[in-house]
Amino acid sequence: MNSQELLKLLELVQAGKLEPADAIERLKYLPFEDLDFAKVDHHRALRQGFPEVIFGKGKTDILVTRADAKIFSAVKRAAGKISRLAKFHPLSGVITIERDAQIAGKGTILVVSAGTSDIPVAEEALLTARIMGNKAEHLYDVGVAGIHRLLENRSALAGARVIICVAGMEGALPSVVGGLVAVPVIAVPTSVGYGASFGGVAALLGMLNSCASNVAVVNIDNGFGAARVASCINRL
Amino acid sequence: MNSQELLKLLELVQAGKLEPADAIERLKYLPFEDLDFAKVDHHRALRQGFPEVIFGKGKTDILVTRADAKIFSAVKRAAGKISRLAKFHPLSGVITIERDAQIAGKGTILVVSAGTSDIPVAEEALLTARIMGNKAEHLYDVGVAGIHRLLENRSALAGARVIICVAGMEGALPSVVGGLVAVPVIAVPTSVGYGASFGGVAALLGMLNSCASNVAVVNIDNGFGAARVASCINRL
Amino acid sequence: MNSQELLKLLELVQAGKLEPADAIERLKYLPFEDLDFAKVDHHRALRQGFPEVIFGKGKTDILVTRADAKIFSAVKRAAGKISRLAKFHPLSGVITIERDAQIAGKGTILVVSAGTSDIPVAEEALLTARIMGNKAEHLYDVGVAGIHRLLENRSALAGARVIICVAGMEGALPSVVGGLVAVPVIAVPTSVGYGASFGGVAALLGMLNSCASNVAVVNIDNGFGAARVASCINRL
Amino acid sequence: MNSQELLKLLELVQAGKLEPADAIERLKYLPFEDLDFAKVDHHRALRQGFPEVIFGKGKTDILVTRADAKIFSAVKRAAGKISRLAKFHPLSGVITIERDAQIAGKGTILVVSAGTSDIPVAEEALLTARIMGNKAEHLYDVGVAGIHRLLENRSALAGARVIICVAGMEGALPSVVGGLVAVPVIAVPTSVGYGASFGGVAALLGMLNSCASNVAVVNIDNGFGAARVASCINRL
Amino acid sequence: MNSQELLKLLELVQAGKLEPADAIERLKYLPFEDLDFAKVDHHRALRQGFPEVIFGKGKTDILVTRADAKIFSAVKRAAGKISRLAKFHPLSGVITIERDAQIAGKGTILVVSAGTSDIPVAEEALLTARIMGNKAEHLYDVGVAGIHRLLENRSALAGARVIICVAGMEGALPSVVGGLVAVPVIAVPTSVGYGASFGGVAALLGMLNSCASNVAVVNIDNGFGAARVASCINRL
Amino acid sequence: MNSQELLKLLELVQAGKLEPADAIERLKYLPFEDLDFAKVDHHRALRQGFPEVIFGKGKTDILVTRADAKIFSAVKRAAGKISRLAKFHPLSGVITIERDAQIAGKGTILVVSAGTSDIPVAEEALLTARIMGNKAEHLYDVGVAGIHRLLENRSALAGARVIICVAGMEGALPSVVGGLVAVPVIAVPTSVGYGASFGGVAALLGMLNSCASNVAVVNIDNGFGAARVASCINRL
Amino acid sequence: MNSQELLKLLELVQAGKLEPADAIERLKYLPFEDLDFAKVDHHRALRQGFPEVIFGKGKTDILVTRADAKIFSAVKRAAGKISRLAKFHPLSGVITIERDAQIAGKGTILVVSAGTSDIPVAEEALLTARIMGNKAEHLYDVGVAGIHRLLENRSALAGARVIICVAGMEGALPSVVGGLVAVPVIAVPTSVGYGASFGGVAALLGMLNSCASNVAVVNIDNGFGAARVASCINRL
Amino acid sequence: MNSQELLKLLELVQAGKLEPADAIERLKYLPFEDLDFAKVDHHRALRQGFPEVIFGKGKTDILVTRADAKIFSAVKRAAGKISRLAKFHPLSGVITIERDAQIAGKGTILVVSAGTSDIPVAEEALLTARIMGNKAEHLYDVGVAGIHRLLENRSALAGARVIICVAGMEGALPSVVGGLVAVPVIAVPTSVGYGASFGGVAALLGMLNSCASNVAVVNIDNGFGAARVASCINRL
Repeated sequence: MNSQELLKLLELVQAGKLEPADAIERLKYLPFEDLDFAKVDHHRALRQGFPEVIFGKGKTDILVTRADAKIFSAVKRAAGKISRLAKFHPLSGVITIERDAQIAGKGTILVVSAGTSDIPVAEEALLTARIMGNKAEHLYDVGVAGIHRLLENRSALAGARVIICVAGMEGALPSVVGGLVAVPVIAVPTSVGYGASFGGVAALLGMLNSCASNVAVVNIDNGFGAARVASCINRL
Repeated sequence: MNSQELLKLLELVQAGKLEPADAIERLKYLPFEDLDFAKVDHHRALRQGFPEVIFGKGKTDILVTRADAKIFSAVKRAAGKISRLAKFHPLSGVITIERDAQIAGKGTILVVSAGTSDIPVAEEALLTARIMGNKAEHLYDVGVAGIHRLLENRSALAGARVIICVAGMEGALPSVVGGLVAVPVIAVPTSVGYGASFGGVAALLGMLNSCASNVAVVNIDNGFGAARVASCINRL
Repeated sequence: MNSQELLKLLELVQAGKLEPADAIERLKYLPFEDLDFAKVDHHRALRQGFPEVIFGKGKTDILVTRADAKIFSAVKRAAGKISRLAKFHPLSGVITIERDAQIAGKGTILVVSAGTSDIPVAEEALLTARIMGNKAEHLYDVGVAGIHRLLENRSALAGARVIICVAGMEGALPSVVGGLVAVPVIAVPTSVGYGASFGGVAALLGMLNSCASNVAVVNIDNGFGAARVASCINRL
Repeated sequence: MNSQELLKLLELVQAGKLEPADAIERLKYLPFEDLDFAKVDHHRALRQGFPEVIFGKGKTDILVTRADAKIFSAVKRAAGKISRLAKFHPLSGVITIERDAQIAGKGTILVVSAGTSDIPVAEEALLTARIMGNKAEHLYDVGVAGIHRLLENRSALAGARVIICVAGMEGALPSVVGGLVAVPVIAVPTSVGYGASFGGVAALLGMLNSCASNVAVVNIDNGFGAARVASCINRL
Repeated sequence: MNSQELLKLLELVQAGKLEPADAIERLKYLPFEDLDFAKVDHHRALRQGFPEVIFGKGKTDILVTRADAKIFSAVKRAAGKISRLAKFHPLSGVITIERDAQIAGKGTILVVSAGTSDIPVAEEALLTARIMGNKAEHLYDVGVAGIHRLLENRSALAGARVIICVAGMEGALPSVVGGLVAVPVIAVPTSVGYGASFGGVAALLGMLNSCASNVAVVNIDNGFGAARVASCINRL
Repeated sequence: MNSQELLKLLELVQAGKLEPADAIERLKYLPFEDLDFAKVDHHRALRQGFPEVIFGKGKTDILVTRADAKIFSAVKRAAGKISRLAKFHPLSGVITIERDAQIAGKGTILVVSAGTSDIPVAEEALLTARIMGNKAEHLYDVGVAGIHRLLENRSALAGARVIICVAGMEGALPSVVGGLVAVPVIAVPTSVGYGASFGGVAALLGMLNSCASNVAVVNIDNGFGAARVASCINRL
Repeated sequence: MNSQELLKLLELVQAGKLEPADAIERLKYLPFEDLDFAKVDHHRALRQGFPEVIFGKGKTDILVTRADAKIFSAVKRAAGKISRLAKFHPLSGVITIERDAQIAGKGTILVVSAGTSDIPVAEEALLTARIMGNKAEHLYDVGVAGIHRLLENRSALAGARVIICVAGMEGALPSVVGGLVAVPVIAVPTSVGYGASFGGVAALLGMLNSCASNVAVVNIDNGFGAARVASCINRL
Repeated sequence: MNSQELLKLLELVQAGKLEPADAIERLKYLPFEDLDFAKVDHHRALRQGFPEVIFGKGKTDILVTRADAKIFSAVKRAAGKISRLAKFHPLSGVITIERDAQIAGKGTILVVSAGTSDIPVAEEALLTARIMGNKAEHLYDVGVAGIHRLLENRSALAGARVIICVAGMEGALPSVVGGLVAVPVIAVPTSVGYGASFGGVAALLGMLNSCASNVAVVNIDNGFGAARVASCINRL
């Protein structure tokens, strides 16, 4: 499949002639077919970091995670008429094609993150939550070593129906946040750190052992999964 | 503190003369004070397995996790007038003192477990969910190697607002359950297994890598924590 | 050895003047000799990923695993008269030179895999099984989070004499498949995943702890080894 | 359930009034019910080492793994008329009740083990293979540091249809055995060793990385599982 | 050496006839000599948990870590005239013999701990700091999930010259404390926790990855070492 | 932000029109904004190795860690009038802009390192200690396998108020140094080594288990953190 | 086999009627036969700590490792006429029966150990070296945190033909010793330590990464193996 | 230092005007100085793989490990008059400058290796042994899965005074070799393998747990260290 074919595929979906579920089936095989851009990189990425194409609310929105500028321009060329809706979010490597602004979640999902380097994963969670039909806000750079920044934002915490906590290094943020609220906290360890952070293992273990008992954990760097769980909760 | 004092403490709580929050403060120091039963064992347990005293809905219910028959009889002796409400659940080592049958959760929490040996942790989750004011049901012994048993109970799965999935060994149950429902699934790995299960690590990793994205995970054998998260969700 | 010499070597084998066993001895030293293509990459690959040259049934078929397009074109140039038989399978990086279509295995080896990203390893197993003289079929993309896809293919499972199960992430597929059949299941964990998958360790542990007891396991990404074991079984 | 009830249960099975499958359902809950012998130990064992009750060929044979003398005498008392068939094998902690000597496997399963300390696991495999209806032989104490002992028994190796290789410490035996035969080799790492054997991990890794490619591996100390896989193969 | 000899030894030290350094040399061999109390336990403890005899300020104070009631009564019997100075601290298993109340440290060492179960290690640090000639205070049960308790004690934090932070589970306390002060923080992970705490590894990793950069770490449960480092600092 | 903007930013700081604290806030987001140099590399580095911008004594000095020549020339271009103060230290990848030579620490911080390959981390510690207002000296290449080199420098050790010990491989240096002095020793494991050094884990474990009890440890390769702790101590 | 039979066995060996090699074959099965002393403990020990019976120089000496007082008295009862030669070394749990004082090794094997707690393993090495026909000396309690103790014994180090270095915790001793001599150093990590020593793993890694290149390593606590290697070297 | 300076340095050594020990001091700093070739690569290599310059027998021979073609041509240019003695061994990345063919070792060091991919490490050991003044032979590609190849070379094994065993994957070779000889065996695990070989950890653990007790182990891929130990032994 080359970018011509990709274009056709998306046009068929737009025209209602191809079911999204069928389109995604073919798209999933894309790295292994004769695609004329970024092939090697994409292929490796697939085996390591799972660039994924996900259909959102009403199956008319599209989300591509772990993309880059190259993939974005190919997607844009291929998207044809709806290309103006495609938006690349470079912090998180996410591409969104949002055609349906309807909100299905009942409250606000708040994404809280510790350090600047955690923002890519936090953004992935934020954008995923939105594409899945939720009102989602963020509160960045409120790591526990500067506890006042978090405490100054207690009203934001209090206003959330579900909280996603993103943190690398020692992963202590969910414990503090969990102690300040009564709603469920979904913790996302990130691979930010070096040495004894072991690619996010330190943060993961910290979160699994959180002394706040309203905390549940997803895989390292899995902003998408955290948003999925939060969205399931927010629709209840 | 000896059992006389423990009795007095509980009576004060019952009479409304002592705030539960204050009682629990003192109870937490109990293993280090001069308690006349099971001292050494209790002390060791505290450092390894966290016997905990928790106050439930309306702060009039009490839950003790990781107890045994000895601790139960001491609690019973000490509980005085309310001793007939104290109930020991030997499968899970949980003691419940439930005085308030009011339900605060909006739907049903379903506890699903894989093998017979996972039942103690599942029971801890079940009883905790109930003491926290939820309607909670269970579905035991539906491991993935006999997939028909799980599929025969799809209506039970469909009726739940939150699902707690308890499994040791390969920890595959949440992936299958997560694929069958749209509600959040809280996964609890258990330390059941031997050899390369590494005390629950195999199950923990399996659950963190679940291909079902509506799954979030708590610590190994942490039935209590799973129920706490599920209860937070069920009150939304 | 340069590609000229490689050509000569293969011609000698074709002409029956060089025993395959002797040819393979020399080929194994190839990365360390003065080969004019892809030397550095090949050398590193050898130390990491074991590109291997294997002779199949009747010792007239050849299988090269972990190859790429560059290696393929060199092999093709070198293969001379039999170059039209050389076929590159880009999904798995396998090169096959099949001259003997005879089937030695008694039944069908079925290769089952979970996600799209597992296909490279699954294909390596499939092609290896065939080059070793077996009828081999495949059933792809039947991960446990969409259990109906697997259940819809129960007749394929029932028709197999040996099953190879390929899965990354939580590696749960062999447990479900093992519970549905009475034949031996050879499980292959893949390095597909990220974060707490630890390069396939999560899947490996999951498979070693499978609650289905007719499951045995090979190394991570070892599609070749799984096919070898399955082929030994299928010849019994 | 007390031992009286256990007796009744077995008599009902013997009389054909209770399906073995139903009996085993009840037996599985046994540690959690009111059983009057060895309760605490059994319970702990269950969570750590999986004493299991398994029905063999024709569902008239019974195998209990990870038992001890205490459990044996209770089983004997309970078994009533068939008590003379109950046999305790102290090396492996296995109890067998064999009423059907019919052989369902087509060839011989050979259990090979490295050191004396590996014999308990090897015996578990041997007895399980027999109770499942196979002709099973053994070749013990043929570790690779005394390679002549193994080589002197090449005819035994050559006569086997499936080989189970049991070894602790460096777990090298399956590599040597695998190189000497063309049949499938099921490798069982044992927890025999100390220090850097890490409870069988060294042997497990050695076997997963075997340079003999006809080797597949089961969990540490899982003699039962190896016999199950071997038996599935031997019935093909 | 029996308890008579131990008595004589201590008397010699008291009388100034034996240098403390010489006494400690002999005491170190004590578990291997013919001591008439608690021999086996002591011996095992030595290999696992390092009961140690340490001489404090002016070398006239004595500290025994990881002791128990049995060892205490033997020490008391042996201590003769100074036996009334011997004090057993059951929370931490520390025995102190303090004859010199002189303070050598310049400021206050503050020991802060997270949960009740961390108190034994915190006490070991506290008592060691004191026996080494420091003014030492404590602030217990100020875990990060109830952040207000810590913040209410900011003046205590502000008054310390060195802070020792003791925490198990996720080990987040030093990060919050480190952000609130400008003095050095010595972090002690404890083995408190279960499951994925891996005997204190989660807390250890959390502390090594602390986002507060004025934190340095000692071994798991090493209250003694933390006090030694803090004491070195406090004497500067 | 492009390099023009970076220039403006630094000029505003120089002119006293922008608080350093505000400047650093913006600089921290720099990798995610539209910066025209080394963007991809910088971004990756941020997630792996934490290039950091730190303000020193009096907040007029600047330290950039984990930089390279490219980043240095951009910083220089941007620094305008103060560019002559910017200095790149290639051994450690540190950029310093030092405008205030005032010494705030009371004594000397001595940085001791084992092998030549440990020098980059040692230099990072040395330069950080200086930029934070300390007199700092170094003693390199005094590994324990040539113990005389260390012993010949005992006077340098004796003259230090705090010692930073940097070592990879077996990380034994702090144990020997700690035994020779009475001041606090901050140990920094480095990722120098191969095979079973596991990226610095061997050195980290060695240091955490040091038999010298005046040793505390920071993260692998964390020269900056060690200097921060040492500087906190040196100001007491 | 009961102790009567054990007696007979040893008498047959003494009388020259049974080859030691044959005797050892039977002795190796001993824990699994009907032995009337310490059966359960011995059995468990065998699977964990390898009590072993080894024949020394001229095959007339006997060494039993990992024994205890119980096993010793049984051995003594059974040894009959040669019982006065049997000697129990409680520090190391070794039993020696030495009938041949002949020295086969060419030089002195020196066993050096770090802390008091390492002595049991050091003694096992020392006694094994002697029973294998070597002159063997020891140098205990010369840990690297008190480097002067080691340096004061340089003549002892200089006089050795092979050195065995035994150390727990950070395992730094072989690096220092290796730098002081030109002969081979066999390093034995011990399981002495706690927390992040991980049962000897810290010492093991330290020794494998030794910056002294004349160091080779054996398994944790393997004093016997170190002596075997040293003895092989000393006979050259 | 540029290549001109490197040339001068070597000429000074050749002329006897600079002690080799002094030259090596300066050479060790080389990657950090202004060297005009392969700087970045060399630098990285130093931190990961330790290219080392070693002086051999009589200090007139030179050995450079972990080099490549680029480094070799620079060394050659710089070596001036003795450049014809410089030899690059591409299999192992070793450069030798041998001027003294004198043999100091008493017997033959035999280097035995398992698979083709292990040859680079084996060659490093072989060349190091020779440059250190030993007669050294090799026996390659004698892995345990083809045990006859090893057994056919028993005379070579019997003729060696010391054996170096190099193997990756399961690392079983030293166990078999150790059982066939009475001389010391130095085992070198290699990082050859994939998946569960964990970069040589599987082989390392296998060798540490070898059931042959005349085996001692060095670090993963440490051919140089094995040769150093073997050379120390061979000079005794």
